[in-house]
Amino acid sequence: MALTNHKFLLAARPVGMPKRSDWTYTEEPVGEPKEGELLVQLLYISLDPAMRIWINDARSYMPPVGIGELMRALGVGIVTASRNPRFAVGDYVSGLFGVQEYALTDGRGVAKVDTRAAPLPKYLSVLGMPGMTAYFGLLDTGQPKPGEMVVVSAAAGAVGAVVGQIAKIKNCRVVGIAGGAEKCRYIVQELGFDAAIDYKAAPVSGFLRRHCPEGIDVYFDNVGGAILDAALARLRLGARIVICGAISQYNNTGPITGPSNYLSLLSNRATMKGTLVLDYVDRYAQAGAEMAVWMAAGKLKSREDIVEGLATFPETLLKLFKSENSGKLMLKVG
Amino acid sequence: MALTNHKFLLAARPVGMPKRSDWTYTEEPVGEPKEGELLVQLLYISLDPAMRIWINDARSYMPPVGIGELMRALGVGIVTASRNPRFAVGDYVSGLFGVQEYALTDGRGVAKVDTRAAPLPKYLSVLGMPGMTAYFGLLDTGQPKPGEMVVVSAAAGAVGAVVGQIAKIKNCRVVGIAGGAEKCRYIVQELGFDAAIDYKAAPVSGFLRRHCPEGIDVYFDNVGGAILDAALARLRLGARIVICGAISQYNNTGPITGPSNYLSLLSNRATMKGTLVLDYVDRYAQAGAEMAVWMAAGKLKSREDIVEGLATFPETLLKLFKSENSGKLMLKVG
Repeated sequence: MALTNHKFLLAARPVGMPKRSDWTYTEEPVGEPKEGELLVQLLYISLDPAMRIWINDARSYMPPVGIGELMRALGVGIVTASRNPRFAVGDYVSGLFGVQEYALTDGRGVAKVDTRAAPLPKYLSVLGMPGMTAYFGLLDTGQPKPGEMVVVSAAAGAVGAVVGQIAKIKNCRVVGIAGGAEKCRYIVQELGFDAAIDYKAAPVSGFLRRHCPEGIDVYFDNVGGAILDAALARLRLGARIVICGAISQYNNTGPITGPSNYLSLLSNRATMKGTLVLDYVDRYAQAGAEMAVWMAAGKLKSREDIVEGLATFPETLLKLFKSENSGKLMLKVG
Repeated sequence: MALTNHKFLLAARPVGMPKRSDWTYTEEPVGEPKEGELLVQLLYISLDPAMRIWINDARSYMPPVGIGELMRALGVGIVTASRNPRFAVGDYVSGLFGVQEYALTDGRGVAKVDTRAAPLPKYLSVLGMPGMTAYFGLLDTGQPKPGEMVVVSAAAGAVGAVVGQIAKIKNCRVVGIAGGAEKCRYIVQELGFDAAIDYKAAPVSGFLRRHCPEGIDVYFDNVGGAILDAALARLRLGARIVICGAISQYNNTGPITGPSNYLSLLSNRATMKGTLVLDYVDRYAQAGAEMAVWMAAGKLKSREDIVEGLATFPETLLKLFKSENSGKLMLKVG
């Protein structure tokens, strides 16, 4: 059989929003697994804000994707050939397979997923990297206590929605910040947040004053910029800010805007701390089991925004930065 | 006896650097202590960067000094009259007495100091608020471990000099950032820092690369601005940033410049936390005793920049913001 693999390579370092010309869409014959390798046919490919960081030529928690290299992406798929004893043909797996149709891998970093426990897309969403990011970022770094006020930005997004629901499970008061009436309705009426702030409707600071009259104990930040500054201005004594991302800043052509109100950390003896899900790999299974219980009990919901067609990758990715996705954004392949 | 008290009131909220016209210098007769009160003749008045915060009309850890009110200041002096059983005439005391020659007080927040253990100015310096700020900020918030790389800004200042020396006592490697060759010489040759960076000589980032090739574990920040950003860019995994002050920003007429490199907290899973000495009042005595032992052993030195004359207050205060003081700045009264 002569299978063809289509894939996206990084063609140029984007300035601002990535354009189609920053990518090369190529095809090549699919290779055969060598001893120890397996071949995965990708079914869903995760599109994440972090991708914008991976394609910058800058020091970060992972080396940048090089020019001419396969674009890095998480994905889930099915094993179609295997010379690796850990995996059999027909296994469903997740891993960092890249933006392509088929991945040859030696199995390092590849995990089996159980499609009887949850549909495959959930393993890129609440049971995947975004869910783990929310779980460990909120619980380990944010350390919310019952009754505390938790605020999360990008609250209808893949991470934010899980943060808010876990905070509710932990008996906190939860305010979500999202863009647009539909997302605000979703997080309050379907996810059970106590309140939602539509940052597109009016400045966030006024809403925060109303919804958090005694201030914020935990602020989980996915966006940076003006919203981070508004949250800093309303901290309570001893507050914790979890820095998870800064999607408002990733496509800047100039420097990132730092939080002008950071001295609120001093007057409130507050903490701002970065969280990275990769630090918790050895606890994913335990967290996944706990979250599966919450899902089964109806306490933890998610929605996925699934776009068909690998070839749409350059345009579909931009939905993240335009806040146009509703739920975890991913590509359905083939 | 008809004693006269001279004092400085806040006349206007300064825009940028405080001007003489932002103050009112007045005199009034000295009052008599009522039951429970004591009269303190001020001998030294502490001039601190925090004063610039106290005169802003903004929410902070203390209410702002009101227009027409006595300017807030720490000071040390001698009790000249007392109807308070805790204090006798001749006692030396420290407290928040204000920028004036005589203070009538009910004794709350007033502490006796022992001039046999150390000269009086030391109680506004290493054995006073700056020393306590350094001690608790470094040890409690910074949590340095032996062998770690500690960097401190305003390193020849009242807080920074103590931070660096305590870090050396705790067997860290210590790099100080200061303005000018003389301050750099002082912190290395007299205080025992491992290296000094003259921020006036060249951009700090190049020096940090050379002196901290493996990155920074603890950064104790007194200055904010470009130096904070340079330190953020060189953090090690798990680094701690202690936010103690931001003297580079206090006289801004526009917004404070936030740290553009704050996402280094994410890639390095680092922490930025504010520290405020007032939280540690119940541990001052223990810390003071420990620091007195270090002083006696020659491991903890300080110098004081003592300017004569209460009337010079408006101009002398500016030395802090022009980095013209060498050591803890204070006024000698009378």
